[in-house]
Amino acid sequence: MEFSAIQIAALVNGTVEGDGDVKVSTFAKIEEGQPGAISFLANPKYTHFIYDTASSIVLVGNEFVAEHPVKATLIRVADPYSTVASLLDMVSKMSAPNPVGVEQPAYISDGVVVPDDVYVGAFAYIGKGVTLGKNVKIYPQVYVGDGVEIGDNTILYPGVKIYHGCKIGAGCTLHAGVVIGADGFGFAPANGSYNKIPQIGIVILEDNVEIGANTTVDRATMGCTRIRKGVKLDNLIQVAHNCEIGENTVMASQVGVAGSTKVGANCMVGGQVGFAGHIHVGDNVMIGAQSGLPRDVESGSRIMGYPAVEAKDFARQVVNVKNLTELYRRVAELEKKLDNQK
Amino acid sequence: MEFSAIQIAALVNGTVEGDGDVKVSTFAKIEEGQPGAISFLANPKYTHFIYDTASSIVLVGNEFVAEHPVKATLIRVADPYSTVASLLDMVSKMSAPNPVGVEQPAYISDGVVVPDDVYVGAFAYIGKGVTLGKNVKIYPQVYVGDGVEIGDNTILYPGVKIYHGCKIGAGCTLHAGVVIGADGFGFAPANGSYNKIPQIGIVILEDNVEIGANTTVDRATMGCTRIRKGVKLDNLIQVAHNCEIGENTVMASQVGVAGSTKVGANCMVGGQVGFAGHIHVGDNVMIGAQSGLPRDVESGSRIMGYPAVEAKDFARQVVNVKNLTELYRRVAELEKKLDNQK
Amino acid sequence: MEFSAIQIAALVNGTVEGDGDVKVSTFAKIEEGQPGAISFLANPKYTHFIYDTASSIVLVGNEFVAEHPVKATLIRVADPYSTVASLLDMVSKMSAPNPVGVEQPAYISDGVVVPDDVYVGAFAYIGKGVTLGKNVKIYPQVYVGDGVEIGDNTILYPGVKIYHGCKIGAGCTLHAGVVIGADGFGFAPANGSYNKIPQIGIVILEDNVEIGANTTVDRATMGCTRIRKGVKLDNLIQVAHNCEIGENTVMASQVGVAGSTKVGANCMVGGQVGFAGHIHVGDNVMIGAQSGLPRDVESGSRIMGYPAVEAKDFARQVVNVKNLTELYRRVAELEKKLDNQK
Repeated sequence: MEFSAIQIAALVNGTVEGDGDVKVSTFAKIEEGQPGAISFLANPKYTHFIYDTASSIVLVGNEFVAEHPVKATLIRVADPYSTVASLLDMVSKMSAPNPVGVEQPAYISDGVVVPDDVYVGAFAYIGKGVTLGKNVKIYPQVYVGDGVEIGDNTILYPGVKIYHGCKIGAGCTLHAGVVIGADGFGFAPANGSYNKIPQIGIVILEDNVEIGANTTVDRATMGCTRIRKGVKLDNLIQVAHNCEIGENTVMASQVGVAGSTKVGANCMVGGQVGFAGHIHVGDNVMIGAQSGLPRDVESGSRIMGYPAVEAKDFARQVVNVKNLTELYRRVAELEKKLDNQK
Repeated sequence: MEFSAIQIAALVNGTVEGDGDVKVSTFAKIEEGQPGAISFLANPKYTHFIYDTASSIVLVGNEFVAEHPVKATLIRVADPYSTVASLLDMVSKMSAPNPVGVEQPAYISDGVVVPDDVYVGAFAYIGKGVTLGKNVKIYPQVYVGDGVEIGDNTILYPGVKIYHGCKIGAGCTLHAGVVIGADGFGFAPANGSYNKIPQIGIVILEDNVEIGANTTVDRATMGCTRIRKGVKLDNLIQVAHNCEIGENTVMASQVGVAGSTKVGANCMVGGQVGFAGHIHVGDNVMIGAQSGLPRDVESGSRIMGYPAVEAKDFARQVVNVKNLTELYRRVAELEKKLDNQK
Repeated sequence: MEFSAIQIAALVNGTVEGDGDVKVSTFAKIEEGQPGAISFLANPKYTHFIYDTASSIVLVGNEFVAEHPVKATLIRVADPYSTVASLLDMVSKMSAPNPVGVEQPAYISDGVVVPDDVYVGAFAYIGKGVTLGKNVKIYPQVYVGDGVEIGDNTILYPGVKIYHGCKIGAGCTLHAGVVIGADGFGFAPANGSYNKIPQIGIVILEDNVEIGANTTVDRATMGCTRIRKGVKLDNLIQVAHNCEIGENTVMASQVGVAGSTKVGANCMVGGQVGFAGHIHVGDNVMIGAQSGLPRDVESGSRIMGYPAVEAKDFARQVVNVKNLTELYRRVAELEKKLDNQK
């Protein structure tokens, strides 16, 4: 399917600049532009690509001012990033697989009700007493343990494993290899070895949570590990037992959250960050990649480092450490001068 | 089921303080207490919760001295943490699924003997020449490669993958997504690209090892990668080829151990720690989270940092670095004073 | 099977020193030597083991000079590491499983052609329109999404998941639990929560790529995430959407590469390294373990640290920081002296 710049502008409530009849049939990153593709400019770091991009159309913000001639047709919109998101969404809905029905063989325990519009892929396993919402998609090789509840419109990609008793909200997306509800890591020392602390709690994912491939969220020792509404976790993240991640908090890949830690709402956490156990992190906290958090963090903080400090202090520390050789030289110089005075 | 404080005290050899007839039917964390629940106090950090907890019963240590009135009934025991562990264990045994038998379809190679009390879940794959101990639980979608040996009472949760020839001891628990025996990462440079070094060794897990979700333990180039008796590994850990982890050593999530490294017994390793390859770490070593270990570590060390140093030196380093801006100022001051003397 | 030193020397074009008739039937690491085994010495750090190893034969470099008597028979070759690799390769080909055919039950969509020499294990899922090359091995519980292309001789170990539309080259090896083509992590803020940016691109793995257990490579937002020819990724690595990893680059375990970052050819990346998003790393770059890369890196650099600096500067920084307590003392001393002058 092809769409003209005029058609797209109408669709996204934008303004055309240049040839309104030029047609596109695909998307391309602005730096990898190609004729017949539409690109977008949201990150100012990429502005210089607009003058040479081979793409036929570029979505730009209303405030964009070209400093050189632009060959592509421009469509001006209020927010290019969310506009492209809606366009992608339309395309995605047209092109992505949308399987329905039960493939054979699947293992569905007696008594489980599978609504008509649900997908259960081959080799998926549905335990006893499982509740499935409307329009749930369970891809092949997924494991849903006894008593699990899954809300409407939730997607479990291939190989997701959910242990018994956990509750998954509506509109959630769990990517391949995610493990929900494995035992928390609890052992009591006993005569030189360890006794396992049984983990009898559960995991609750509230609505609209998305979890990346191979991420793990452990069940609570007692009570629950809770991932609140709208949380987005990237791949290979660890959330330990009895943690709580606040609404709309976003964590990049490979973050680790140790046991019983509470992270607030609307936080943004960089990749490979580590949280100590039993700490409280406030709301709206921004944490730089690879930081280590040994203690509580106040709401609104912007922190970084190992151990983490205010981001501006971290920047200062880095410079201070970089210049240490010079500082040693200066101190030696002072010592020499003072010595010479004797 | 409900139990009174008196009944529980009898069970755990404890002493009741307060209403012995109050009944509980569940567990709760002390900070999330609720009527009808039993909580415990082991970590002094949580002591202040005891005065307001809504839980009906709290297990405390014999040495606990209340500084304010406590509403809950107390049961005093020698070690509240291990007492609650045994209580949880009883409950867990009553409530957790305990499947038995072979679900269909499962793939069990000809000649493999499945003892009566073993569970083989649907879509599990048992290769040629596999040996299964008594009471082994193999959950759905597990892969057990040719010639693998699995000891008595071992549990393989959904989606565990064990490559051919590896040996799993008795009483082990492997959580969902664990991969045992994938090829070690070995490549020999050859004309600008790499030739793979075949990995013909195996992995041996000794008895009572527990391994967390999505953790990976690679097979040896030759010989074996060995996880000794009683080792506990959390989620998303990497143990490379030819490593050895000593008895009862415990590692938190996302630790990485590079090839041929030997870690001693009874070590405690924080999350996201990295071990260089070909190093030796002694016994009883404690390693702070996110540390990087570039070289051998003596038994009994307590280390932290990147690169790791003695924990007390690390604490000092952190303070020293924090105060550097002030040190730069002091040196500039000295330079000015000395300059003014001229 | 047993082979004599003379037979092996003939096979690998080497020279025997010592008893040529001694026979071996297995491999052993030099430090774990045993009678009847062949070992090799490539890493000088292990030289001292050669004098006491119990192995019957040791492969050494032509330039090796014994400083003490060696009991084992030596076979001298140009490159012991690649020689042992070829020997292991022969053994591996004789001993490793080499399954062929389709096991039942497998799910193979209508119209998919399975060449005669292909293996499809039980519980594997092959989606619509999938193309399979010659001699492809698809182990049990693998998921191959709609429209995926897999090149000749590629091996997908148990539980690998490949999302729809991705392209896997020839001669690739993907270990258990690898996830290719899960959605990139893209969300646009919208009224306090987030809207998902659909990820309509794909992942392309070129030829001879090896990917370790539970590693994840995300599909592009648009266009592709590309892993070039000969790249070797270890376990538990994250490669985000729209990244590109250059030819023959090697990454150790638990590395994270954030979105749209381009890494050059022939780089060597240590374990747990983190790359920021949208950066360019040149060719032939060596990066020390646990480094954090916040910005572009020039070709040929050798870097380390958090944030990463030139490796020699990092070493200097470590020493400078270690000696800070002494520097503080020296500055205090200077202040005292200067004060006393008044």
